[in-house]
Amino acid sequence: MEEYLARIGPADEAALRAATERQQVLTKPAGSLGVLEELSVRIAGITGSCPPPVPSPAVVTVFAADHGVHAQGVSPWPQEVTAAMLANFAAGGAAVNAFAANNRVDVRVVDVGVAVSVDELDIVHAKVRPGTRDLSTGPALTPEEVRAAIDVGFGLADRLVADGYRCLLTGDMGIANTTASAALIATFTGATAADVTGRGTGIDDTTLAHKTEIVRAALALHEVPASDPAGALAAYGGLEHAALAGYILGAAANKVPVILDGVIAGAAALVAQAFHPAVTEYCVAGHRSAEPGHAVALKALGLQPLVDLDLRLGEGTGAVLAYPIVTCAVRALAEMATFESAGITSEGDA
Amino acid sequence: MEEYLARIGPADEAALRAATERQQVLTKPAGSLGVLEELSVRIAGITGSCPPPVPSPAVVTVFAADHGVHAQGVSPWPQEVTAAMLANFAAGGAAVNAFAANNRVDVRVVDVGVAVSVDELDIVHAKVRPGTRDLSTGPALTPEEVRAAIDVGFGLADRLVADGYRCLLTGDMGIANTTASAALIATFTGATAADVTGRGTGIDDTTLAHKTEIVRAALALHEVPASDPAGALAAYGGLEHAALAGYILGAAANKVPVILDGVIAGAAALVAQAFHPAVTEYCVAGHRSAEPGHAVALKALGLQPLVDLDLRLGEGTGAVLAYPIVTCAVRALAEMATFESAGITSEGDA
Repeated sequence: MEEYLARIGPADEAALRAATERQQVLTKPAGSLGVLEELSVRIAGITGSCPPPVPSPAVVTVFAADHGVHAQGVSPWPQEVTAAMLANFAAGGAAVNAFAANNRVDVRVVDVGVAVSVDELDIVHAKVRPGTRDLSTGPALTPEEVRAAIDVGFGLADRLVADGYRCLLTGDMGIANTTASAALIATFTGATAADVTGRGTGIDDTTLAHKTEIVRAALALHEVPASDPAGALAAYGGLEHAALAGYILGAAANKVPVILDGVIAGAAALVAQAFHPAVTEYCVAGHRSAEPGHAVALKALGLQPLVDLDLRLGEGTGAVLAYPIVTCAVRALAEMATFESAGITSEGDA
Repeated sequence: MEEYLARIGPADEAALRAATERQQVLTKPAGSLGVLEELSVRIAGITGSCPPPVPSPAVVTVFAADHGVHAQGVSPWPQEVTAAMLANFAAGGAAVNAFAANNRVDVRVVDVGVAVSVDELDIVHAKVRPGTRDLSTGPALTPEEVRAAIDVGFGLADRLVADGYRCLLTGDMGIANTTASAALIATFTGATAADVTGRGTGIDDTTLAHKTEIVRAALALHEVPASDPAGALAAYGGLEHAALAGYILGAAANKVPVILDGVIAGAAALVAQAFHPAVTEYCVAGHRSAEPGHAVALKALGLQPLVDLDLRLGEGTGAVLAYPIVTCAVRALAEMATFESAGITSEGDA
């Protein structure tokens, strides 16, 4: 881990300052682009230049894995759906495919721990193990498995940036992954199981109460402190959370923005933040999921979501939906005329 | 007006029903695309087919005009900024140009009533008169001028659809246009001047109090009932509000979705709704402006904004920002696999 973390530094102060100043002289009332002004400033800081290059091309990486806790009945969906959805991604038939095609985002699908073999699919094969162990009865992963899964994400981020991508988006797929997410979010924020456990893909009140109790008991069983991100991943998984944490750290190490999807990404970003606090400077919150733990995670990360439309699908759909907002923010900063260049009398002169 | 209004009917019931049913069998948990599911259903109803065609190509039309009430000191910006910004739009240097280039939306700029000559610009020239009269001292427009400005918008909508555009976005430019908007919104919603008058491009407390009093006094002077949209346009203007109302009615007459920008568009949509109640079925609220009257207008229109990022620029920026969300919603409905086609066991079978 040390070599990864040593590559991460804070956002560039000079670029942040230059972008803040440039926003004041563009042909619009100061502040009238709202959240997009701050967003453009952040991208300048991430990339270290003002105006920053448009963060393009972009890629959404869907990290897929299964969860041993599925055996406890926390989801109404059979575990086989994870693998079936991977085939759907590979065939271009999922929501993330439609969104990504529309928004000019490439899609990568990574098997980091699906329970069954998906060798026949044309995806990235990086299976660390076939699903996690059941977090409600013991550690989900060994320390070596955690490290291997982080490596998958970090290495992929390095490779994608080397291939020319300038914006990384998170995606995820894994039946029962909101359960592991809830345990991770509670660990790093101090929230209770009830605060962060939600209906996932849509469960009834009885199942929600059961799922919440599973999370509560697991937190008591493992008692991982917020200062131990590797320990939290070992306790709760998932393999996709570990890979996502590595991917987020890898984006920061490469000084490219990473757009976070929903609650799974929020949990992984909290893990990454515990490894290195500066990592959140490289994160953009794509959207706010309807899952309650996501708002808790975003608050702890200090991130404001760009889209808030009751999505709770995962796959990276919220991140892909937000991507054009990020590029619009950057293009406004880069391409707009200034009052001086346009020959317009600004408010201050009126 | 009668011939316009006769061309407008309700959204297609069969397409609405078919789209609602199709959303249930796509490869995702039911409801997990949140607001985008209802949005895709609405577009099906607007176009009368399921799945609907992707609403592309798209065009944002920036209707520009000046306001006689500017003389009352309701804005810190000189009136000349309207014409200067038209030159900026024509040169591609404004925020809406950057957003539109990013989101593959064409830009049309229309002079429907700028105070000075902008004949030298390569824009659509349809000036009805050089700015409105001062709404605080008498009617802003004659009935004939109102009708001519509505004609500009309706005729342009017809032409754009004939040219192949399948999604119309609203844009606007006009120093002091939030004052006329406030009066229109108060007229159609029953809200008070204080509820709907805001800081526009950014005014101080003293100017805000003065502006609010101007709106309050104008409402008392003209006393237009909510049932008289032409009378409200004559009383308060602006020429761009009248043209926008015609453009919105024209989109509905042509059965193409119209994405509304901020508070100016919201005021114009209330005018259009007063002419024909079905028109809101064809409207998508692009964003929620920071201007307080906009939330009041959206509530009265029954529309939920897609983007809520504190923008208060106008020009169509909020509508352009929302456009990819609309196309993503439609493409998900049109392109996603069904559980049956993907061979996935759905929740109901688990």
